[in-house]
Amino acid sequence: MHDILIEEKILSENDAIAHENRHAFAERGVFVINMVSSPGAGKTTLIERMTPILLDTLGRFAVIEGDLEGDLDAVRIARAGVPVKQITTGKACHLDAHNIAHALPWALEQDAGLLIIENVGNMVCPAEYDLGEDMKVTVLSAAEGDDKPLKYPAIFDASSALIINKIDLAPHTDFDIERARANALAINPSLQIFETSCRTGEGIEQWCAFLASKTLALRGSVSTSR
Amino acid sequence: MHDILIEEKILSENDAIAHENRHAFAERGVFVINMVSSPGAGKTTLIERMTPILLDTLGRFAVIEGDLEGDLDAVRIARAGVPVKQITTGKACHLDAHNIAHALPWALEQDAGLLIIENVGNMVCPAEYDLGEDMKVTVLSAAEGDDKPLKYPAIFDASSALIINKIDLAPHTDFDIERARANALAINPSLQIFETSCRTGEGIEQWCAFLASKTLALRGSVSTSR
Repeated sequence: MHDILIEEKILSENDAIAHENRHAFAERGVFVINMVSSPGAGKTTLIERMTPILLDTLGRFAVIEGDLEGDLDAVRIARAGVPVKQITTGKACHLDAHNIAHALPWALEQDAGLLIIENVGNMVCPAEYDLGEDMKVTVLSAAEGDDKPLKYPAIFDASSALIINKIDLAPHTDFDIERARANALAINPSLQIFETSCRTGEGIEQWCAFLASKTLALRGSVSTSR
Repeated sequence: MHDILIEEKILSENDAIAHENRHAFAERGVFVINMVSSPGAGKTTLIERMTPILLDTLGRFAVIEGDLEGDLDAVRIARAGVPVKQITTGKACHLDAHNIAHALPWALEQDAGLLIIENVGNMVCPAEYDLGEDMKVTVLSAAEGDDKPLKYPAIFDASSALIINKIDLAPHTDFDIERARANALAINPSLQIFETSCRTGEGIEQWCAFLASKTLALRGSVSTSR
């Protein structure tokens, strides 16, 4: 009982900071996504593949990398030519709004219309922590099984988009893409679902077009209101 | 600072209960493993494949299934003919010693020399929670990438064995088994490493033989000491 009260307090403090982050990003016309997945679902490789397309469409975007330890992923993103900020969480299994508030001045300095936050690889805890993003995006690897939306419903419920990644592996597994879609939509009927493969490049253009349209729509509305 | 003190208190309470669990299991000669992995690394399918071999060698074993929601995995294990207890954690991203203490009377009633605990799919938080097991076993799917030991070191460090699963997928990915082994051993040089595929059956016999030998050794030492 005591622990539940503590948890509620932590989450309500987090939500207050997330609210401030969201306000700061909106004021500057920055569209923010929070990418969540199990370890190894392919978030970093996806960002690498998205990079040339997004640079072409948007000119500029920035990335915040959340990891328990090290900077392996941030080095990969920087090598792709994208400004990146590493947040090392130590033992914490998720990014929180406080982490993002610390990185916020850096993020705004990048003058990018799109900020991609790559969360720690964890399909459970990030579902509860609002970072101030415009949308959570769950990445599910086809190698993980089509039952995952039913087993980890909170993150599918909290997300606006689902990327079914590594679809090139589906024929080598029991993964049924239609069943995965149906399971995900049973949890959250308004999910926008994309299917991608970083090996074949399939679906990356469509996902980037969606992201770019959201980013440009926000920029447009901010310029108009100024 | 306050949160760190709370966390230390929760972990020290957990450790005290884990100590009691370990004592109760040891007294009854039950060898206990705590299987940890990302969502979708194949823990349940692995247990299904292990079942006929372990039933043949040990006659009997039992399973505790940890899940956020539902009983999909427990139904699969029960269908394979193994006594199984479902623990539903709700929002909790890991099993704790308290969960196992509740299931302990059931586990001892099964009169099984081996208890397999399948933890919630999460490569981060279960590393910190001792359940009273004899060994933690990390399952890493080849589809997750060979860099995972470097990115999630705590669970590799806390484990006695590593199962590299879905090795049939390795040729379809950039996964390098030797690099995965080297990365894991760099974190924990005493890891026992097994390579398995539930599709081809490769490696399951070797892993079961290891598990059976540990189980029988414990049973032998308990009978002798009585």
